[in-house]
Amino acid sequence: MADKFISERNLKFLLYEVFDVVSLTQYPYYEAHNRKVFDMVLKAAVKLAKSLLRPVFAEMDQNQPDLIDGEIKVHPSIRKIMKEFGEGGWITSTLPFEKDGEQLPHLIAGACSFIFQAANYSAVAYQGLTAGAAHLIESFGSKDLYDIYTPKMHAGKWQGTMALTEPEAGSSLSDITTMAEPTDRGYYMIKGQKIFISAGDHDGVENVVHLMLAKIKGAPPGVKGISLFVVPKKRFDPDGKLIFNDVIASGVYHKLGYRGCPTAQLSIGDHNDCRGWLVGEPHHGLMYMFQMINESRIGVGLGANAIATAAYYASIEYAKTRCQGRKISQKDPTLPPVALIEHADIKRMLLFQRAITEGALSLLMQCSRYVDMQNVLAGEEREKYHLLLEILTPVAKTYPSEMGVLSVSQGLQCFGGSGYCDDYPMEHYYRDARIHPIHEGTTGIQGMDLLGRKVVMKNGQAFALFLAELKETISAAKQFPELDGPAQQLSEARSKLQKITQHLLKIAQAKGVELFMADATLYLELFGIIAISWQWLLQGISIQKALNNSYAKTDINYYRGKMFTMHFFFRYELPKILGLEKRLMDSDGLTIEMEAQFFND
Amino acid sequence: MADKFISERNLKFLLYEVFDVVSLTQYPYYEAHNRKVFDMVLKAAVKLAKSLLRPVFAEMDQNQPDLIDGEIKVHPSIRKIMKEFGEGGWITSTLPFEKDGEQLPHLIAGACSFIFQAANYSAVAYQGLTAGAAHLIESFGSKDLYDIYTPKMHAGKWQGTMALTEPEAGSSLSDITTMAEPTDRGYYMIKGQKIFISAGDHDGVENVVHLMLAKIKGAPPGVKGISLFVVPKKRFDPDGKLIFNDVIASGVYHKLGYRGCPTAQLSIGDHNDCRGWLVGEPHHGLMYMFQMINESRIGVGLGANAIATAAYYASIEYAKTRCQGRKISQKDPTLPPVALIEHADIKRMLLFQRAITEGALSLLMQCSRYVDMQNVLAGEEREKYHLLLEILTPVAKTYPSEMGVLSVSQGLQCFGGSGYCDDYPMEHYYRDARIHPIHEGTTGIQGMDLLGRKVVMKNGQAFALFLAELKETISAAKQFPELDGPAQQLSEARSKLQKITQHLLKIAQAKGVELFMADATLYLELFGIIAISWQWLLQGISIQKALNNSYAKTDINYYRGKMFTMHFFFRYELPKILGLEKRLMDSDGLTIEMEAQFFND
Repeated sequence: MADKFISERNLKFLLYEVFDVVSLTQYPYYEAHNRKVFDMVLKAAVKLAKSLLRPVFAEMDQNQPDLIDGEIKVHPSIRKIMKEFGEGGWITSTLPFEKDGEQLPHLIAGACSFIFQAANYSAVAYQGLTAGAAHLIESFGSKDLYDIYTPKMHAGKWQGTMALTEPEAGSSLSDITTMAEPTDRGYYMIKGQKIFISAGDHDGVENVVHLMLAKIKGAPPGVKGISLFVVPKKRFDPDGKLIFNDVIASGVYHKLGYRGCPTAQLSIGDHNDCRGWLVGEPHHGLMYMFQMINESRIGVGLGANAIATAAYYASIEYAKTRCQGRKISQKDPTLPPVALIEHADIKRMLLFQRAITEGALSLLMQCSRYVDMQNVLAGEEREKYHLLLEILTPVAKTYPSEMGVLSVSQGLQCFGGSGYCDDYPMEHYYRDARIHPIHEGTTGIQGMDLLGRKVVMKNGQAFALFLAELKETISAAKQFPELDGPAQQLSEARSKLQKITQHLLKIAQAKGVELFMADATLYLELFGIIAISWQWLLQGISIQKALNNSYAKTDINYYRGKMFTMHFFFRYELPKILGLEKRLMDSDGLTIEMEAQFFND
Repeated sequence: MADKFISERNLKFLLYEVFDVVSLTQYPYYEAHNRKVFDMVLKAAVKLAKSLLRPVFAEMDQNQPDLIDGEIKVHPSIRKIMKEFGEGGWITSTLPFEKDGEQLPHLIAGACSFIFQAANYSAVAYQGLTAGAAHLIESFGSKDLYDIYTPKMHAGKWQGTMALTEPEAGSSLSDITTMAEPTDRGYYMIKGQKIFISAGDHDGVENVVHLMLAKIKGAPPGVKGISLFVVPKKRFDPDGKLIFNDVIASGVYHKLGYRGCPTAQLSIGDHNDCRGWLVGEPHHGLMYMFQMINESRIGVGLGANAIATAAYYASIEYAKTRCQGRKISQKDPTLPPVALIEHADIKRMLLFQRAITEGALSLLMQCSRYVDMQNVLAGEEREKYHLLLEILTPVAKTYPSEMGVLSVSQGLQCFGGSGYCDDYPMEHYYRDARIHPIHEGTTGIQGMDLLGRKVVMKNGQAFALFLAELKETISAAKQFPELDGPAQQLSEARSKLQKITQHLLKIAQAKGVELFMADATLYLELFGIIAISWQWLLQGISIQKALNNSYAKTDINYYRGKMFTMHFFFRYELPKILGLEKRLMDSDGLTIEMEAQFFND
């Protein structure tokens, strides 16, 4: 088992050098913290990841959850993990002090999540979902709901879920049919079916609290009739005893990967005895849920990137120790073989992985920084960061997910045949990675969200803010002659993005929304490559600063490697926008005109 | 379980309309055949695939081979499959009549293999390996070896293998250490270790015949000292009884996919009692083995494409039956949901799969046709087809393998969450597909083979022949105004390929072989995209001919769908060469200059 799954060095580079998390402590909300605190938190996260999560990484995969006697049995370590995450304050790390949280910046909390997910993705999905579900109650629920549910959830004793998908309503949430019938006793009677519910039931906790979308009887059709409910697996009886609330785990999926966390089918109200409590106002459920959906989307990007990162370090280790063949210019068979890492093509695959994972991590931290800025600012400034987050969420979800799959695949390839076998963790990472382009909104859904909603929102304000961020980074980079080439390249890419977007908006006006949106997924791909180029240039500035000034001598290899990786991204990845540009400027409607019947035979 | 795994309609289009297999019957070697015979053979293959192979597709995956009491136990149906393939003449289908073969064109035999592999890839690997191994004995072995081994192998009673890889010699075969010590009794004593041997041991046959690379004591170092041996698991004793030949299955791998076929570790000569028989001349082993390696490489391409094809039909079926959401222009939630296949983005994913799989199948059939032309021609004409095969082998191996993985992944994506679960076959295809960029020479090895060997061989003659083939197709396409755009695009792509190749050859002269070869994998990627564009244009000619002339009325949707798919390739896939061109013209040596130590931290 590969030992290294993240680089603390790189995390600190991003946190302290690129995103200057310490500067947040100048704001009253974060003033209780300092660099020392942050370092301690990171250290504790690494320790927990190594001692608690990593040892059961393979084991949890090999022992899939099973539905036994109506309850899903999970790996026994889950109970301990939930407990330690609860007691250690990891579930509440970003909550304000007044709510018993640690009031940590999202930059730090995100870095910790990343460490945990890299160690064992499935194992920490439980607590991530619990934190998100509790946050929903906290944001939109009544004080009663808050008092009953969140303490147990924050303590890791009760599991939280997001219960959205139904057999006939996956990507299309407007079609959900789970019904909520009002009573005069303060709750609703819930009835329906839910599928694909992560951690939807298990024996590692005392109770499961579903944040569930349903329609109140007589509600308007579509998304405008969706309400949000708290629907626990067990509810309190009048004596304060937990009793069954008619939520049954009716099945558990057998999945390609992500096997340590059960994905459940739920039958709700089969015996007409399921009670649910409305969160906030009726019919506003989807809007509320989008808080958790958006958090989860960035969380999925982070998880995808964590898996790809762990895979990257495993392939580095293998490439350094496994010897095979000789350099192309040295074909003498009597020479000893060289380590894989000496071959240019292997270095290309390793650089690809590093460019993807460290580039995507930077974008994800950028998003965390925007969240933190939202927390400390108000008014127009706050709105700016909100809009930047809006436009970057589909990108931060998709780029790490789609490219993470390819990155892990290149890592597996470095192992040759061994990568295909379970003697090494690569095939496991490869299976785990594949869920991310699917869950929390498929890549297709993200493409539509970006182009159809975020780019055009508020008269293109979010898009303009994004372009301004790029421009600022380009200007900053131009102070350093070493970054001139990449800065120029990003500037050209930025112009292309503007040009393509303008072109598509004209198509929307002239030819309608179907043609405008036909290649939205490819637009998202283009957008993602440019966003990561931006993040690499941003990192490049910090790298160059370090190289120009003083740095610890032991760090020279780190900085030089980072600089090579930045150049790799600009030379190998950014050119991919040329093909995408060609396609996106065509707008010939080919996929619209292709009829279903032409797929016959 | 999806029922359709191939399209007979499309196979017949390629065989009869594009590659005109019937025209081969004008040559004496194939004169015994006619269209009717070919149709019957195809029909029999489909029947066998459906009745024998398909029913155990999932079952063989779920019950991995295990090593029990020194022998690898495989699914019980393997014995039956081997027997039926032997008795049905499928193992000998391309052998001449005089060797009890069917003397079928490779075009037809390849189509049958494709059908079998699409039905159940793992299940037919056994017989494919047996055919290749027997062919090696037939081509280079003595009459004695031929008489002892091939009848049993052709009958499917004995398994054949290619035993190359060792613990310290995978991609670098020059480093093998398995030793062969001559005796004065006509055989050699063999001692060594082999790993990753497909079907290297199992209980579905009476014996296993390894075509094994080893070094004769005192042989020169490197590939020039490698010899080829027949090393059976069991040998005949003087009484004609099969006895143990000291070849032990010491392990079996647990793999991501391709689980129906065991991948074995072998210990040879542990008790100093393993006898091997030299094939051909000493030290010529690798050259001989390359016959089987080259056949296998094209076979891997075909298998990869077969898996991706089966996945494509599964996703078509799902997209036609699963309803979800509404068209982008019709957001009224009271309208009934539409089938997935009505969404442009889903059609894009389906067209991607179809463009990849039908394009790659065409290239593989093109290769089969070259083999057939070699068989019927002599002298310079024969050499022409030989060279074309040489240059196309790394492409025919890699394009279907690398793009097959992406194609299956897009198919899985069409299923959403269901694609990630084992209720549908997509996750199985996804796992099976991933082996192909690895076995029979990784993609990196193929890139080096193409650029470092094939492009430059015989003064660039093979490359020139390839360019001439493209030119011929472009000229033929220009007869049809409807094909003008794609013909023009291919013509430009062809010029780019020439320009990039010239540039790289100049780099080789001016700056050496390391820089020349640094991005060989990307050169292969570029070459592959252009080769498939060529094949789509070639298909386009036949499609347009059919549309211009008469076709069965029921076929109109087929031809129109094909035409859309051709355009899809030119508009979505071919533009990818723009980014590759940018990269390949740079030749900045970035991956060479990146030092191993820069990967620290």
